[in-house]
Amino acid sequence: MELENCRVGDGSAVAENATVGHKYESDAGPTVLGREAIVRSRSIIYGDVRAGDRFTTGHGVLVREHTTMGDDVLVGTNVVIDGHTTVGSAVSLQSNAYVPSETEIGDRVFVGPGAVLTNDPYPVRTEVDLAGPTLEDGVSIGANATVLPGITVGEDAFVAAGAVVCEDVPPRTLVAGVPAEERSLPEPLADSNTIL
Amino acid sequence: MELENCRVGDGSAVAENATVGHKYESDAGPTVLGREAIVRSRSIIYGDVRAGDRFTTGHGVLVREHTTMGDDVLVGTNVVIDGHTTVGSAVSLQSNAYVPSETEIGDRVFVGPGAVLTNDPYPVRTEVDLAGPTLEDGVSIGANATVLPGITVGEDAFVAAGAVVCEDVPPRTLVAGVPAEERSLPEPLADSNTIL
Amino acid sequence: MELENCRVGDGSAVAENATVGHKYESDAGPTVLGREAIVRSRSIIYGDVRAGDRFTTGHGVLVREHTTMGDDVLVGTNVVIDGHTTVGSAVSLQSNAYVPSETEIGDRVFVGPGAVLTNDPYPVRTEVDLAGPTLEDGVSIGANATVLPGITVGEDAFVAAGAVVCEDVPPRTLVAGVPAEERSLPEPLADSNTIL
Repeated sequence: MELENCRVGDGSAVAENATVGHKYESDAGPTVLGREAIVRSRSIIYGDVRAGDRFTTGHGVLVREHTTMGDDVLVGTNVVIDGHTTVGSAVSLQSNAYVPSETEIGDRVFVGPGAVLTNDPYPVRTEVDLAGPTLEDGVSIGANATVLPGITVGEDAFVAAGAVVCEDVPPRTLVAGVPAEERSLPEPLADSNTIL
Repeated sequence: MELENCRVGDGSAVAENATVGHKYESDAGPTVLGREAIVRSRSIIYGDVRAGDRFTTGHGVLVREHTTMGDDVLVGTNVVIDGHTTVGSAVSLQSNAYVPSETEIGDRVFVGPGAVLTNDPYPVRTEVDLAGPTLEDGVSIGANATVLPGITVGEDAFVAAGAVVCEDVPPRTLVAGVPAEERSLPEPLADSNTIL
Repeated sequence: MELENCRVGDGSAVAENATVGHKYESDAGPTVLGREAIVRSRSIIYGDVRAGDRFTTGHGVLVREHTTMGDDVLVGTNVVIDGHTTVGSAVSLQSNAYVPSETEIGDRVFVGPGAVLTNDPYPVRTEVDLAGPTLEDGVSIGANATVLPGITVGEDAFVAAGAVVCEDVPPRTLVAGVPAEERSLPEPLADSNTIL
């Protein structure tokens, strides 16, 4: 357990062989976690990461520098958040999901297991600014889906499992397929919009 | 190595920095492994997990509570089995595969690298019972495929690499694509059914 | 840190709880890394692995035996290279990518996050020789793409994100979709061929 460079709120539990506050460079700032955090074994949280209350991780998680998270964020086993990213409150990132740097995630967002967000439009050959996706409030990204760089997924929209999202997704729509295309929203989901 | 809460059969080898018998709650039962188990470094096996003989893991594996496995089960590097799951004998789960809770896996099942099984049909917005897929005996799931919640893949069926399975798959068929549709079974596979 | 069975060049940094030179069998040879290597924590490099200068890993990486890499190879967090594989120079394997044994990767290759290469055409049922893909010089594999066994992706070709590659890809082409089909190369990429 590396706990020199962090502040952790009351009621928190950090596993003995987790790393919180990793000094990724000599003048890295601390990790600051709210109350009742649970960081499970083999997870690594870099310095300059902030999370609100009830931050919870699985095992083998990596959260890199300059990531800011709200309350009630769950980061599943083996998830990578590659830094310089903002995450809202009541967000669930399921096992093996990948979040690149320069990503914006709103409140009440669900990212399914194995989903891959990206930030690099023309890898290797040209110099570009990295820009991850923006997932607005209430978005669900299905298992093993892929979201291309710079894409905005609108409020309460759904991306189906395995979809490859190449264009912006309007609010309150469902997209599916490769490339992802708009589908009608199934009844249970349309209904639930009014409840939430 | 955490070996207080487990029973491991003769001829087994547990790496020094693997964790077997993790007490995920105060009254967690032991992990029970058969003969000739190999648990490689950085893998974590929770209490209340049982496996038969020749249980073998790669590195960085997570097997959570109330998972029961038969003989000759191979769990590849970084695989997550999220608990409350049954796995038969002679099963191979390849690197980076994800198996959610409430999944049923038969005998002689192959799950390719990066394949994602799911258990949550309408994430976040509605309360539902989680139900993972059922993979019957002899099923092969291709690399990076996705299987939706509650789906049954029938005996000796094949799911092609990258397929997204949204409907039950009949026995001895091949499905491919997004969404996955039935294809004729290639000769070598059709033949091999009679051999095995 | 396990550093008994390795030779590491000047200016290198191996994290305290990384493993370099893992003796996977009793007569395993050493790991040999060039100058200015960076091996981050929780990564495992087996014996009989060689890399040139400026070899850099993320966290939780696994590189198995008989892997030979050139200079300037970046292996991202949670990447698995399953051994008996050749990797050229100036190669980037992004987080969560999977490289099976018997794979050939040229120079200036990019493999996106979550991409899965495979080596087993008819898993479980028949005995076959494992043969991974060949990625020629300058290839880019998109995020979460899947490449089937024995496939050759030709020089400077692009595989789009989420594509499933079932046939050889000619040099300087773009393939996309499931199954992957040829598309015209977008302008910025076509242009960059002349620059590089």
